[in-house]
Amino acid sequence: MKIISDSLSISTRGFNDMKDLTGAIEKKLSEHSLKNGIVTVFVQGSTAGVTTIEYESGLVKDFSELMERLVPQHGSYYHDARWGDGNGFSHVRASLLGPSLIVPFKDGRLTLGTWQQIVFVDFDNRSRSRTIILQFMGE
Amino acid sequence: MKIISDSLSISTRGFNDMKDLTGAIEKKLSEHSLKNGIVTVFVQGSTAGVTTIEYESGLVKDFSELMERLVPQHGSYYHDARWGDGNGFSHVRASLLGPSLIVPFKDGRLTLGTWQQIVFVDFDNRSRSRTIILQFMGE
Amino acid sequence: MKIISDSLSISTRGFNDMKDLTGAIEKKLSEHSLKNGIVTVFVQGSTAGVTTIEYESGLVKDFSELMERLVPQHGSYYHDARWGDGNGFSHVRASLLGPSLIVPFKDGRLTLGTWQQIVFVDFDNRSRSRTIILQFMGE
Repeated sequence: MKIISDSLSISTRGFNDMKDLTGAIEKKLSEHSLKNGIVTVFVQGSTAGVTTIEYESGLVKDFSELMERLVPQHGSYYHDARWGDGNGFSHVRASLLGPSLIVPFKDGRLTLGTWQQIVFVDFDNRSRSRTIILQFMGE
Repeated sequence: MKIISDSLSISTRGFNDMKDLTGAIEKKLSEHSLKNGIVTVFVQGSTAGVTTIEYESGLVKDFSELMERLVPQHGSYYHDARWGDGNGFSHVRASLLGPSLIVPFKDGRLTLGTWQQIVFVDFDNRSRSRTIILQFMGE
Repeated sequence: MKIISDSLSISTRGFNDMKDLTGAIEKKLSEHSLKNGIVTVFVQGSTAGVTTIEYESGLVKDFSELMERLVPQHGSYYHDARWGDGNGFSHVRASLLGPSLIVPFKDGRLTLGTWQQIVFVDFDNRSRSRTIILQFMGE
């Protein structure tokens, strides 16, 4: 049983920018030569989240519009009144979606569906360089 | 320390059909004779999710109505415009709720509250046969 | 590789009362002398949830207002009609946010961002004493 701490570095544009991490995580899994276990995908930071989606341009826009509808960018936020960051909406979206995702793997492959990708969504109000934690546990 | 890859097969009617998985997962846990660890419940597919709820008919309807209110079935979705599947709402609901749930177990029992059940919610717009991944890690 | 079942006991006031668990979890991690692995934070019960947030008073209020907007306390709930508990909104909020969070740790430290705290949110409609499950897996 091994525990392997790894990470991915990506650049994003913020404003719901959604990045498909699936290929990069599969590559890491293959490099670590693990067969069975879980990978934890964890967002280090409070203005981004992770989930899965069928990664195609229509749904990428649909998910972005949902976030804008549920948590409007130009709504009124105590965070902005207090700190002037202007990214209150980013924080609230991130807390709603959540920072952690666990994906099992079996026989060396992630147990995703055919049309299911692991995505990182950057909710911040500017471009960011991001480190995403990957923790593999398995054998 | 063991890693056990298992799964459940269920049939659903779609449209927020909510299934209580608790008994089936407890049965698997007992069969695998594990005492302490975690089970990962993972949805293979992009139109369903997992969470916990007090599984009684009132809340099953309340949760379904929430989903309809936040992500209306007959809203306008780029996914539908592009692919004609008519299940854009299903995908967006699934991404919002999330595909993975981790439940610890201790002394051979899931650490759920008395009125807390593990549920699978099928958001698709048709009946489906579903495979739900269960990955046990423990001893 | 060790599996350590632990827990935290806290008191809350309900109504979206948000508690920062980060310091208490870091203390437990240090006591258990683990270097690398994951901790599962799990809500035992069906009227509270966990996530991460920048824990400052503005965002605490912003998140509370989001919950009230998405799932109004004084909305109409089948749960309340059937059981008279008056906390239908609490259950639905809890299922939406989710009961489990996994945080990796590395070199004895949680892999959180600088402005990212682990929080428990009690959605119930009264004061509660809560047990939060912490399950450490690592070495």
